[in-house]
Amino acid sequence: MPSANPAEHTAPGIERADGAAGVDIAALLERAREMSAPVLRAAVDRLAPPMDTVAAYHFGWIDAQGRPADGDGGKAVRPALALLSAEAAGAPPQAGVPGAVAVELVHNFSLLHDDLMDGDEQRRHRDTVWKVHGPAQAILVGDALFALANEVLLELGTVEAGRATRRLTTATRKLIDGQAQDISYEHRERVSVEECLEMEGNKTGALLACAVSIGAVLGGADDRTADALERYGYHLGLAFQAVDDILGIWGDPDATGKQTWSDLRQRKKSLPVVAALAEGGEASRRLGELLAADAKSSDFDSFSEEEFATRAALIEAAGGREWTSQEARRQHTIAIEALDAVEMPGRVREQLIALADFVVVRKR
Amino acid sequence: MPSANPAEHTAPGIERADGAAGVDIAALLERAREMSAPVLRAAVDRLAPPMDTVAAYHFGWIDAQGRPADGDGGKAVRPALALLSAEAAGAPPQAGVPGAVAVELVHNFSLLHDDLMDGDEQRRHRDTVWKVHGPAQAILVGDALFALANEVLLELGTVEAGRATRRLTTATRKLIDGQAQDISYEHRERVSVEECLEMEGNKTGALLACAVSIGAVLGGADDRTADALERYGYHLGLAFQAVDDILGIWGDPDATGKQTWSDLRQRKKSLPVVAALAEGGEASRRLGELLAADAKSSDFDSFSEEEFATRAALIEAAGGREWTSQEARRQHTIAIEALDAVEMPGRVREQLIALADFVVVRKR
Repeated sequence: MPSANPAEHTAPGIERADGAAGVDIAALLERAREMSAPVLRAAVDRLAPPMDTVAAYHFGWIDAQGRPADGDGGKAVRPALALLSAEAAGAPPQAGVPGAVAVELVHNFSLLHDDLMDGDEQRRHRDTVWKVHGPAQAILVGDALFALANEVLLELGTVEAGRATRRLTTATRKLIDGQAQDISYEHRERVSVEECLEMEGNKTGALLACAVSIGAVLGGADDRTADALERYGYHLGLAFQAVDDILGIWGDPDATGKQTWSDLRQRKKSLPVVAALAEGGEASRRLGELLAADAKSSDFDSFSEEEFATRAALIEAAGGREWTSQEARRQHTIAIEALDAVEMPGRVREQLIALADFVVVRKR
Repeated sequence: MPSANPAEHTAPGIERADGAAGVDIAALLERAREMSAPVLRAAVDRLAPPMDTVAAYHFGWIDAQGRPADGDGGKAVRPALALLSAEAAGAPPQAGVPGAVAVELVHNFSLLHDDLMDGDEQRRHRDTVWKVHGPAQAILVGDALFALANEVLLELGTVEAGRATRRLTTATRKLIDGQAQDISYEHRERVSVEECLEMEGNKTGALLACAVSIGAVLGGADDRTADALERYGYHLGLAFQAVDDILGIWGDPDATGKQTWSDLRQRKKSLPVVAALAEGGEASRRLGELLAADAKSSDFDSFSEEEFATRAALIEAAGGREWTSQEARRQHTIAIEALDAVEMPGRVREQLIALADFVVVRKR
């Protein structure tokens, strides 16, 4: 049954999973931010002007006028995973720092390019880079961050760094494949649930998987251990994306920093939409007719709030929201079970479980 | 003294350098194309649809309607250098193939993004990717080619591949720095000759340098040898770019595949322009006034052929064309002298010298 407050309806029933008791998530994220931020800043400082300034704006370190800002550079979930990844392999968290920074650089490269491709004007409550500095800078700085990611790893000069870079490259290719699928789905009338999950696995699962293996690889773990950790990260990514898809339609703009009905405005074939279309009942059929008409409509860009609200209500009535919420729980469970295949200190396992809970129960 | 036929006035007097006698350049380029093309195609085939099709269009393998085409995928100078690079280190040319492919992938990643950033509508006598498939595909496929470049090297799984990827990453960062400088110079009234040379060294020198070292690194050469080979490639790149700058203004559109006065239309501060502005005589002063007025003009986009011809004539009268032609010769000489620092088979040295001659004496 739909919750009264849309922003709080994510994936009920997993506020506290077994084994995650007493983990201070805020401290875990803060540690990751503190350990990786100086290395990230030093990497970005290497960029030739004006790319250094544009990147600093993107990360929230300065505002559009170049004044220092205390911006929200994201939740640092990926860096936190990379440090725990090193610890899972018995290495100190420091061993994961270059991996944390490299993954953050690739993540932000993709944000810069995706925002431009998708025409998104807002991110983290601020104008996106292409809006402020123009499309050319968004392309260029994205490219530069991608190159920096490889540089940060490869200049370690170790065999492990080569292995880590290879995993990061594979993840980045999947990330790009996922964005290609996402764009092409916007122009298709029907997308299956399986296609949507594959796209989301590429777009979100692959890089989270890499975050959870890269620290271990840098810390000397073998490929079997790294692969098992990736399985946790991949399914965590799918859980994360399912929640994101719910927030992309019903999220509170004050919390998400995006427009209302954000994904509907962009004709995203996200999980709630494809699940609702696949359901086949009356609301599902009516939704399909509306979306098919929307695809041909020249008025789409001037649709009112009410028109999007109607579509959202049909998605909910066809069970798309509830299905996606259950899918988040299902992926969360698979992720946590994947940890059983890796020997690691009990405290690290608890922290990984707590992070999984945090990722699935969130409002932005 | 200016030549009567602009397209043939490149860098006179070096049609045949010492030691390059009897090298069949066409065969050298054909060998590089034949050895690297299957590996390049196999790499591109890995891309998720529709990126594989978009990339195939970019490389000239299919036309805009998807029909097979026998397109001109470029002159294959970089692949030829990468194979010779392996041979310079005493390895078989095959050892250089992954390097040749990786460098081509990075080069084409930069073409896809630069054409979009610069608004270039034509490349190799065809519409550019963003014109045919839209900006999003140009961004996305560029990103994918960059990632593929690293993948092709890193999946070799050797220590040498890690070293090669690190050199390629450094070169790619410089390439991006150079494009950032190039764009920012378009908006500046004055750019010094030194700044222009630095920009061109980044934008063209770095990747040619990498092409000439990457085969050697994959073939087991030490860093000293690779660095010396890079010196040859870097200065060859500067010579190449000086010729390109001349063709960018005075090149024959039928040969270059670009518009007439291409670089002037884009307000490029290329070598002939900055050298002419630095000269300080009457034509130089007049040119400076015109370009300063152009920067503020709202009619610039509708300028006639004659208006560009006037600017080109002033650049020539201020010695910008002759200076650039001499600079091409000077860089060509430094490149060839750099080869003295490397022990290599005499035949390979002759071929590298012949390729340097070919690069500097060209019409497109």
